[in-house]
Amino acid sequence: MTAPAPPLLPEDAPTYADVESAARRIAGVAHRTPVLTSTTIDRLTGAQVYFKAEPFQRMGAFKFRGAYNAASRIAEQSAGRGVIAFSSGNHAQAVALAASLLGLRATIVMPNDAPRVKLDATRGYGAEVVQYDPATEDREAIGRGLANEHGLALIPPYDHPHVIAGQGTAARELLEDTGPLDVLFVCCGGGGLLSGSALSVRALSPHCRVIGVEPDAGDDGVRSFTTRTLQRVHHPQTIADGARTPSLGRYTFPMILRDVDHMMSVSDEALLGAMRLLWERMKVLVEPTGALGAAALLSGREAVAGKRVGVILSGGNVDMGRWFQRAS
Amino acid sequence: MTAPAPPLLPEDAPTYADVESAARRIAGVAHRTPVLTSTTIDRLTGAQVYFKAEPFQRMGAFKFRGAYNAASRIAEQSAGRGVIAFSSGNHAQAVALAASLLGLRATIVMPNDAPRVKLDATRGYGAEVVQYDPATEDREAIGRGLANEHGLALIPPYDHPHVIAGQGTAARELLEDTGPLDVLFVCCGGGGLLSGSALSVRALSPHCRVIGVEPDAGDDGVRSFTTRTLQRVHHPQTIADGARTPSLGRYTFPMILRDVDHMMSVSDEALLGAMRLLWERMKVLVEPTGALGAAALLSGREAVAGKRVGVILSGGNVDMGRWFQRAS
Repeated sequence: MTAPAPPLLPEDAPTYADVESAARRIAGVAHRTPVLTSTTIDRLTGAQVYFKAEPFQRMGAFKFRGAYNAASRIAEQSAGRGVIAFSSGNHAQAVALAASLLGLRATIVMPNDAPRVKLDATRGYGAEVVQYDPATEDREAIGRGLANEHGLALIPPYDHPHVIAGQGTAARELLEDTGPLDVLFVCCGGGGLLSGSALSVRALSPHCRVIGVEPDAGDDGVRSFTTRTLQRVHHPQTIADGARTPSLGRYTFPMILRDVDHMMSVSDEALLGAMRLLWERMKVLVEPTGALGAAALLSGREAVAGKRVGVILSGGNVDMGRWFQRAS
Repeated sequence: MTAPAPPLLPEDAPTYADVESAARRIAGVAHRTPVLTSTTIDRLTGAQVYFKAEPFQRMGAFKFRGAYNAASRIAEQSAGRGVIAFSSGNHAQAVALAASLLGLRATIVMPNDAPRVKLDATRGYGAEVVQYDPATEDREAIGRGLANEHGLALIPPYDHPHVIAGQGTAARELLEDTGPLDVLFVCCGGGGLLSGSALSVRALSPHCRVIGVEPDAGDDGVRSFTTRTLQRVHHPQTIADGARTPSLGRYTFPMILRDVDHMMSVSDEALLGAMRLLWERMKVLVEPTGALGAAALLSGREAVAGKRVGVILSGGNVDMGRWFQRAS
């Protein structure tokens, strides 16, 4: 028996030079988000922890970085062409906002169980929303069908060189602000943020241990990483709605195998605990997917005492309706 | 019939010079909190709105400013003397943290219905907590009794020149960052933040309209302002737990009469709406009392279109237990 061959890295996979190019492109358009610290969390973990706070990014999540990097190149190359995206939420708003800023028409394919706040915000940016049933329909097929039919440029949610390079700018800014780190926790859905972050870490803090974090129910990335063979998951039930992606991608999987040190998953209960700590102590609204890295840190399963640790809080788009209805 | 004489301003009432002195004293100890903006809220109001985000202050609220200013002067004048405070919550944590940083012993008198997170945090800073029943007992009497018995220096929650001067540093920082404003909304419980803010406004942006905001159920300040005679309220039922104070003070009332332009009150429902918008759109955890100014702005009862508007978000210490229990 031979081990399965690891997937080949596509020739046009992004490099750190592409992250630098993306950083120039988003400068002055994306926010340079703050790096937050908490004496409570430092005391709990024994580490010095730096949180890159992407809830304060435009449209409330890191996704704007990659979407704007990709959309701005489409606007340059084929002015007047519309863009299309399929997304469980934040990528939808990101493409809608980026397109709106660049004067492009945007069509967004969204699951019909996406949080209302994300549907509303996407429409609020002027995009046309097409909904589908995630339990029975394939968003990629719908998105590609519409793209072909109307000649729209598809901006995929993660598996695209410009998207990955854009997402890598968050870790780049973090490392510019903190200097080299010992460990970096990054949430993982389709792996765009994780593979992009790893590019920045390998360039700016090469000895830093990069850890990808998924929800238990959607641990296809952990299993893919362990087996070095792409594993899938079908519509996983988790509160981390941004990490319900079916699998890593053609670019992100080999990049993660090359640049990431470890993958782990955490329970929804641990996510709620981490969210509560971040809300209560740091006053930052972080969505479940955005708390994956913090939950992994707080799980104690990675030795961090005495270390300099980075955590990317990836987004803060929580649908507050249900919280406010129940509490009032 | 003659109108009642307005109250006399005590001779040792603080001035803007005291705010400047407090600013020097808290520099490097208190956080200089960020000023946040929101395109959503600008669009909703037609104004350019600047939010001074005190949830990111140490212990999560502006109260640290006044408490540290007062406690540090006590530490200088009588080293080794303990301090005592009575507070519905944030002032308790503020005095506890300030005392801990200055090496002073702290005793805090707190109502037994204070949010758990505030009780825990106060004890977490090493203070001794004495609880009382706010429906039947008078916290001032208990506090003054313990102070006399044990020779402790009392730091009142609002009605003290050093406390007022310290609270004034938040508006001072805001105006330093934004330049002159047309309107400033400030929440009002006992009036420490409001009277201190007004000192900074009169010095740095004299034509700015200063508006104090209370919850409907605790509108003693509005009535006192209108009648120019001190009005009281007994244990008001409102979610704005930081504004359940019985009345304005000996210093704060005449200062407010002199320096504040208008007072208004808002419903608990409006507070919940404002909190939700701040959480959902700005990703900042703001407590009910902290949202009073934003609720007044969003009520549309003050003409702000085309104006430069400041709002002090005074704190973010929300007890998340009830929210997370119900939502999970």
